[in-house]
Amino acid sequence: MEEQKLTTPAILPGFMELLPKDQMLFNRMMDTIRKTYETFGFIPLDTPTIEKAEVLLAKSGGDTEKQIYRFQKGDNDLALRFDLTVPLARYVSQHMGELTFPFRRYHINKVFRGERPQKGRFREFYQADIDIVGFETLDIVHDAEILSVIYQTFVALGFHRFTIRINNRKVLNGFYEALGIEDKTGVLRILDKLEKIGPENVRKELGTMNLSEETIDKVMRFSEIGGTPEEVVAAVRALGANEQTEVGLSELEAVTKAMREYGVPEENFKIDLTIARGLDYYTGTVYETILNDYPSIGSVCSGGRYDELASHYTKKSLPGVGISIGLTRLFYQLREAGVLEGDKSAPTEVLVLPMTEGRGAALALASKLRESGISTEVYLNGGKMKKQFGYADKLGIPYCIVVGETEVETGRYTLKDMASGNQEMLSEEEIIAQVLQRKAQEAAKKVCGEKP
Amino acid sequence: MEEQKLTTPAILPGFMELLPKDQMLFNRMMDTIRKTYETFGFIPLDTPTIEKAEVLLAKSGGDTEKQIYRFQKGDNDLALRFDLTVPLARYVSQHMGELTFPFRRYHINKVFRGERPQKGRFREFYQADIDIVGFETLDIVHDAEILSVIYQTFVALGFHRFTIRINNRKVLNGFYEALGIEDKTGVLRILDKLEKIGPENVRKELGTMNLSEETIDKVMRFSEIGGTPEEVVAAVRALGANEQTEVGLSELEAVTKAMREYGVPEENFKIDLTIARGLDYYTGTVYETILNDYPSIGSVCSGGRYDELASHYTKKSLPGVGISIGLTRLFYQLREAGVLEGDKSAPTEVLVLPMTEGRGAALALASKLRESGISTEVYLNGGKMKKQFGYADKLGIPYCIVVGETEVETGRYTLKDMASGNQEMLSEEEIIAQVLQRKAQEAAKKVCGEKP
Repeated sequence: MEEQKLTTPAILPGFMELLPKDQMLFNRMMDTIRKTYETFGFIPLDTPTIEKAEVLLAKSGGDTEKQIYRFQKGDNDLALRFDLTVPLARYVSQHMGELTFPFRRYHINKVFRGERPQKGRFREFYQADIDIVGFETLDIVHDAEILSVIYQTFVALGFHRFTIRINNRKVLNGFYEALGIEDKTGVLRILDKLEKIGPENVRKELGTMNLSEETIDKVMRFSEIGGTPEEVVAAVRALGANEQTEVGLSELEAVTKAMREYGVPEENFKIDLTIARGLDYYTGTVYETILNDYPSIGSVCSGGRYDELASHYTKKSLPGVGISIGLTRLFYQLREAGVLEGDKSAPTEVLVLPMTEGRGAALALASKLRESGISTEVYLNGGKMKKQFGYADKLGIPYCIVVGETEVETGRYTLKDMASGNQEMLSEEEIIAQVLQRKAQEAAKKVCGEKP
Repeated sequence: MEEQKLTTPAILPGFMELLPKDQMLFNRMMDTIRKTYETFGFIPLDTPTIEKAEVLLAKSGGDTEKQIYRFQKGDNDLALRFDLTVPLARYVSQHMGELTFPFRRYHINKVFRGERPQKGRFREFYQADIDIVGFETLDIVHDAEILSVIYQTFVALGFHRFTIRINNRKVLNGFYEALGIEDKTGVLRILDKLEKIGPENVRKELGTMNLSEETIDKVMRFSEIGGTPEEVVAAVRALGANEQTEVGLSELEAVTKAMREYGVPEENFKIDLTIARGLDYYTGTVYETILNDYPSIGSVCSGGRYDELASHYTKKSLPGVGISIGLTRLFYQLREAGVLEGDKSAPTEVLVLPMTEGRGAALALASKLRESGISTEVYLNGGKMKKQFGYADKLGIPYCIVVGETEVETGRYTLKDMASGNQEMLSEEEIIAQVLQRKAQEAAKKVCGEKP
């Protein structure tokens, strides 16, 4: 070969790339989420990564404009999607006549944001979204349905101690309006920090907002309301609810009732009047989800109700409700917390090691195992047995079978359990039964193991 | 709402976006391929969509430079990957010390090429690749292993009449060298058109290349060699094989022997001396795959052996062999040919329709069905029964269950088969058994139905 200058193999900062063992874990998480979403009948959607910049930026401003990856190619002004909600709005508007409403879709794929990189923040990351979009109307019960999917998703991942926090923008808007507060967004932004900086600092920051002491008192008292959903609703009513607040309270009552019908346990949801969600487009129910044992991760799944999903693309009214899991960040945080469980670096269940002259028989046995749905590799690179078993160990392959002439003649093979070191002489059928049994046990294990 | 200017919801030309029914088909194809790859123990890999431009372009030139999506963000010179092979080379070089060799990975994801859009060509499309990368050496048997995976993949998709065409660059290089042909690439490019333009036009084009009539005769005779693998090898030897050609012939013999051990039927592969594959980096075995009934689609799966995968990133020798399915194009062509079979527009198996006051019971029944792995939706938008059944029809949902007070009291439900219109009164357990049975039958069906 000619002498040439080497290019250093490296990726950009702020991008995630995994080694096989972590990739296997990541895929198990993603598959669990996908499977749960499908169990509720959500339709898979896939949209282009690259879209027209004018379409993606139809609504945006501020941070989005700064963070978006935007570029020219030929005459086209292009951009990479920065979330999955804007493409959904575009898709539903564009294909309105060909879709069945309510349109229930899930979308799990990468989005792109050129943020300043920092620990646990990525410029390219997976989101796992579900949304239900109605045509002109969408019953409030769907707000609870979305939550029941999220509940099942986190249970399927292996969590039990998590809390879905529910609020309603109408309650907030009505309450602040009744108090004569004009800069509601400003107040909400300060209240959002309650958990982080504590009530005293929040009070201090509210003090800079040109509000009377009495108003600040009421705001603080409102934010401290807690208890069961019924207690929270009653406490807000006791503070005096105007018409808008009352609509919001009725919606919270309807969502609570439906959550119970969906069988979501009381300990997994609560009404929390302090959450507001930053995005402007939420108009009713808003949600966040906290892992009780890992509060510092923040919300792992957020969303809410928006009355006008697609108002930048169509005059038709398309109300929706949805939620998004930031999968890459969640994976990163759970891995840091040591919550993920799995030690396979390959999907392989059985490694077949052919002795000299045993290759044909080894390949035939492997085909049989694969026909039974068992992921099987034949080691084809020779070398000492120790090296071959070492290959299985490194990849976390649970079983090895050595195939030589004797095995072919007798039809019985030695199955070695790599974890225990045990060896057993078995027939093909017995091997298949044992491997499938172990595989089923593994499949029943959750990817996230909550510490007791 | 304020009056505002609407943005037309549209995507860019040359990008694929599917409606739910087609998306369901596409995902079934992708899942089938993924599952087959995993059955052979290939490890999933996922690399960033955006990489450093200097890394992606370390080797390239010509078309790649022109087609690549490249842009600046801050100080970074970025590009979107245009294939999955360059990222593999970069990944293996970068993480060499942490990987187990031979490293067997699959990668199914999108790549990006700013080509001039034309029918059946896309600027953003899925590739489904497998590669096996050795450290310093890689046994020739892996060349056959890759082909056996491809054979199983197309069988799993529903094809039987397809042909894997195998050749070896050493045979070609040796033969042309022996003839004293200097511009081998030029001759190969012309021979590549044999099927398209016919032998006479190929001969004419070869005539422009400053070759003697005798040489052209030999080239044409060589390209016409056919028959069983043994006949082809013998015929090449009869024309006089130099050392390089002989090495290539031995490799073809080894691959053929292993293909038979893998159980690939004779009618599904043949040695074809006319295929060369455009890419420079193939050094030994090369492959193409043709669907016998749809030859105009061209090769649906191509690849080969490259002795130096990562020579632009490392001085270590990393020989590899692999293959790529251009999934988006294949899907598009098969759909055009009417080969794809499926009529569901949602994953849902059962739609539960609650009568007034039946919602709680409907939600409880749906939960039970989901626990058994049955994708279930509860219709929550009321309206007439006809409209509710119509929703199931439009989405291709196979079963409906109406839940009212009687059903709750008796524990027996009417299961309506939407295709036949049949209705049966069944218990929960009977419903689960029947739906699961139908689901298993559906799952056994192939996504591609070859016309008899």
